[in-house]
Amino acid sequence: MEIGIIGLGRMGAGMAERWLRGGHHVVVNNRGRGPIDELAAKGAAPAYSVEELVAALATPRAIWVMLPAGDVTEQMIQKLVPLLAAGDTIIDGGNTNFNDDMRRAEALKSHSLHYSDQGTSGGIWGLENGFCLMVGGAPEVVARLEPAFRTLAPADGGYVHCGPVGSGHFVKMIHNGIEYGMMQAYAEGFEIMRARADFGLDLHAIAEAWRSGSVVRSWLLDLAAEAFSGAPDLSSLRGYVEDSGEGRWTIQAAIDLNVPAPVITLSLYERFHSRQPESFAAKVLAAMRAGFGGHAVKRAE
Amino acid sequence: MEIGIIGLGRMGAGMAERWLRGGHHVVVNNRGRGPIDELAAKGAAPAYSVEELVAALATPRAIWVMLPAGDVTEQMIQKLVPLLAAGDTIIDGGNTNFNDDMRRAEALKSHSLHYSDQGTSGGIWGLENGFCLMVGGAPEVVARLEPAFRTLAPADGGYVHCGPVGSGHFVKMIHNGIEYGMMQAYAEGFEIMRARADFGLDLHAIAEAWRSGSVVRSWLLDLAAEAFSGAPDLSSLRGYVEDSGEGRWTIQAAIDLNVPAPVITLSLYERFHSRQPESFAAKVLAAMRAGFGGHAVKRAE
Repeated sequence: MEIGIIGLGRMGAGMAERWLRGGHHVVVNNRGRGPIDELAAKGAAPAYSVEELVAALATPRAIWVMLPAGDVTEQMIQKLVPLLAAGDTIIDGGNTNFNDDMRRAEALKSHSLHYSDQGTSGGIWGLENGFCLMVGGAPEVVARLEPAFRTLAPADGGYVHCGPVGSGHFVKMIHNGIEYGMMQAYAEGFEIMRARADFGLDLHAIAEAWRSGSVVRSWLLDLAAEAFSGAPDLSSLRGYVEDSGEGRWTIQAAIDLNVPAPVITLSLYERFHSRQPESFAAKVLAAMRAGFGGHAVKRAE
Repeated sequence: MEIGIIGLGRMGAGMAERWLRGGHHVVVNNRGRGPIDELAAKGAAPAYSVEELVAALATPRAIWVMLPAGDVTEQMIQKLVPLLAAGDTIIDGGNTNFNDDMRRAEALKSHSLHYSDQGTSGGIWGLENGFCLMVGGAPEVVARLEPAFRTLAPADGGYVHCGPVGSGHFVKMIHNGIEYGMMQAYAEGFEIMRARADFGLDLHAIAEAWRSGSVVRSWLLDLAAEAFSGAPDLSSLRGYVEDSGEGRWTIQAAIDLNVPAPVITLSLYERFHSRQPESFAAKVLAAMRAGFGGHAVKRAE
């Protein structure tokens, strides 16, 4: 089918290339020119402006927006609306908050424009393995886009139409919340093993062994094993961990829905901890212990 | 090689069968006669008593004890000691606490008996796929047993000699602690999705899609997908979750080593919660809120 895509970062470029390999006609746009030319060399139709991209596509259009979630995506959609024709569809494949999807889809309705939210997992590996897609949108809208979704997804599945607009990014958000908890569980386990110094455990060998036949085998464990193979003590890294929003939103959803999600919540808080060389909370604890008298505390120098 | 095994539960029987397929000579013993005869029909040498098993093996013997951890295993080892000869090895393949391993190995030394602890993951799937083995013991002891370990493990790896006695079960314990955290992360995510009723999410379809190409793909997710395939609302199950000790020991190890392990700890506590229809802690909270005045609380009927 005919596909437009705006935003050729790692994920967007990988998607465009996968579509080209799948025989689709792909019109590509990006803020910087480099990625456009790279994909044009692989068979894409280059569009050096959003207007050019819209003009190059026959109606009803399907335009994927693969930009950072938040303002950047929001502004692009505002820009697209007056350029599009009734019946066109905007697909947001970024990590947008599902509440934004629902608000936007409502706003686009008055222009007779369709909207679909595509949660995308697989990162830079998606080009070769396929992207796992969680899609939200009206049935007839999603059905029309399905050839493009199927080409992006792995051959053996990895595509689900979750439900109405917002549900795709909602499921992707939960996916990422689960990911936080799984990562934290591995992280704690490896730290306990490292702390048991008298056993002299080879974390790389253990991770590799677990990859075969163990209950905790997973793709995240594959990544951990790979990381330990280079440097078992991870000496090239700092123990500083950012988050990109989905964990926070998952916790917010849990609160809104009155569902206890302690492990996902704590996994985010542990990332906050990782960014504090020294916490004020710990100072408060030390202050109170000092107040008891008889407890040794450390004074700032 | 020549192998003795005591305890033909699901794990033990699977190991014995895998050894037989691998061409080893396997002498099998079990409290009940049925599993002995089943394995004898598959080529094992039956031993209807522990004494018979010991007599059927040439020295130096290698005897796997595959019994429930704790007293049952402890008593079997006490029973074996006077029957064995210097140079024989007892391998505990159950879920024994690593501190028990270290104590036992010390005690066996005075009888010139060797000891090896084998952490085993893979459950009932191990027979076909191979068991993931985490082994502790002196290098020369483990080296002699290695043909048996290699046959148990999957063809592509899944075997690691972790370090000295105790380290095999220590690593298996951490493995299970990580498993608690991973399972809890999935569990919370699925509950949040279920709570968002207006999206009408098909948890089976989502789990299946995640299995292909997503970051959270894992063997545990495969099991979850399988569970949802039969009954998406899991109506045949009660939300009551036991634990079998390794989670508690992981937390104890974390405390002993001063390592924060909040997610693994909370995962165990969530299992405790699952066993409380109503908690006393919640009553205490309700009592205090009632004390504030103006807060609605529920009175027992």
